[in-house]
Amino acid sequence: MNSRRASPPPPGGKTPAASASPWRTRRRDREVKREAVIRAAARAFNRKGYHNTSLDDIAAALEVTKPTVYYYVTNKEHLLFQCFLAGVEPIRAAFRAARDQAAPAAERLSAVLRHYGAAVASEFGWCMVRAEDQDLSPAMSRHIKALKSEIDQGIRRLIREGVQDGSIEPCDPKMTAFALAGALNWIAHWYREDQSLTPAQIAAAFISIFEGGLRPRSASQVATRAPPRRRVRIAR
Amino acid sequence: MNSRRASPPPPGGKTPAASASPWRTRRRDREVKREAVIRAAARAFNRKGYHNTSLDDIAAALEVTKPTVYYYVTNKEHLLFQCFLAGVEPIRAAFRAARDQAAPAAERLSAVLRHYGAAVASEFGWCMVRAEDQDLSPAMSRHIKALKSEIDQGIRRLIREGVQDGSIEPCDPKMTAFALAGALNWIAHWYREDQSLTPAQIAAAFISIFEGGLRPRSASQVATRAPPRRRVRIAR
Repeated sequence: MNSRRASPPPPGGKTPAASASPWRTRRRDREVKREAVIRAAARAFNRKGYHNTSLDDIAAALEVTKPTVYYYVTNKEHLLFQCFLAGVEPIRAAFRAARDQAAPAAERLSAVLRHYGAAVASEFGWCMVRAEDQDLSPAMSRHIKALKSEIDQGIRRLIREGVQDGSIEPCDPKMTAFALAGALNWIAHWYREDQSLTPAQIAAAFISIFEGGLRPRSASQVATRAPPRRRVRIAR
Repeated sequence: MNSRRASPPPPGGKTPAASASPWRTRRRDREVKREAVIRAAARAFNRKGYHNTSLDDIAAALEVTKPTVYYYVTNKEHLLFQCFLAGVEPIRAAFRAARDQAAPAAERLSAVLRHYGAAVASEFGWCMVRAEDQDLSPAMSRHIKALKSEIDQGIRRLIREGVQDGSIEPCDPKMTAFALAGALNWIAHWYREDQSLTPAQIAAAFISIFEGGLRPRSASQVATRAPPRRRVRIAR
């Protein structure tokens, strides 16, 4: 996740060549600039909302002209979709990695949720969580819904596998997936990057809560504590 | 919660008098009609969004004139706030009830969260969860923020008390409150009233997940299950 959160290079700045091939150099340069455009858009959408942000705003933030922005994206909707993709891609990659691991499903689910939480707390979180609320074309809406559904179904599948392999307490996979994703999605509503915890720390704290649950794990712990204080009401 | 979810009386329909006093009858009639206005507004905001809903729409839904709506509320912002209040009031009432109970904090927290979940799944859920996102006057924004903060602080307090009385596993009260409230708030994004589960059932399912956690409670359960299936990749 760290590479995604690195600052974009200054506009027009040179990017180190990945190889000696000038074609590769140019290609990588274009990719870095495209990422900077998407990151600038994500920040602007996050700060001002999608409808209040123009491509002019994004061009101004990058100190380039609007045609330069159009060189990388077709229109604002396409830009929002790219921001959405940048947010969900690490989660989809985590699912792919989870498929190839032999670990119990609970561990594989944790890995996915760690990426999920960190993504929602990243600058792409707003776009991931709120993109669907905007007035998008039916095609774009369907595309975003399909990717969200893929993630939801992936979480449910890992929960079912966990219940089967004994690493997850028997539960309703649909409700559990909604509870987990909801808690993580909501991070986009309260988290600002200047807070004391990093996205990874927030994700880890949430997963520890999900895994452990609120009910004490050790019976002796309950017994050794003081009983609840009884409140006395004074009649007025 | 059931009375809140009952259908409003037909516009202009008579309401049974609560007592023989004509003043009380009239007062109750006004209160019932005011509630119908707020409920109609909540449904319209939920369906069309706050900015796309006019007082004309709400009047039309109730088959009354716009001046009739103005008799009950000052303006659309005031109406949104009343919808917000109608949503959070059962939660605030649950906190008041929790204060007077001697039960362990975990039980008192569960009772509050049950009301929280049911409220978010009610027709006021959208207004509760999304009101703050709208372009509201600074005064209204502050008012809504203050009520949300009161609820957040109330949840944290019950978590702290639960950790103290041993009914809740030691945890970070702030992160835990965010995780719980986030999962519940997100219900407003996916729940529609025509679904198979009632708001109370959804709240109960979520609380069971929060309390138990994903990790199996019984060690023998894990041991008796089959190990995870190892996936074989076929080279292409």
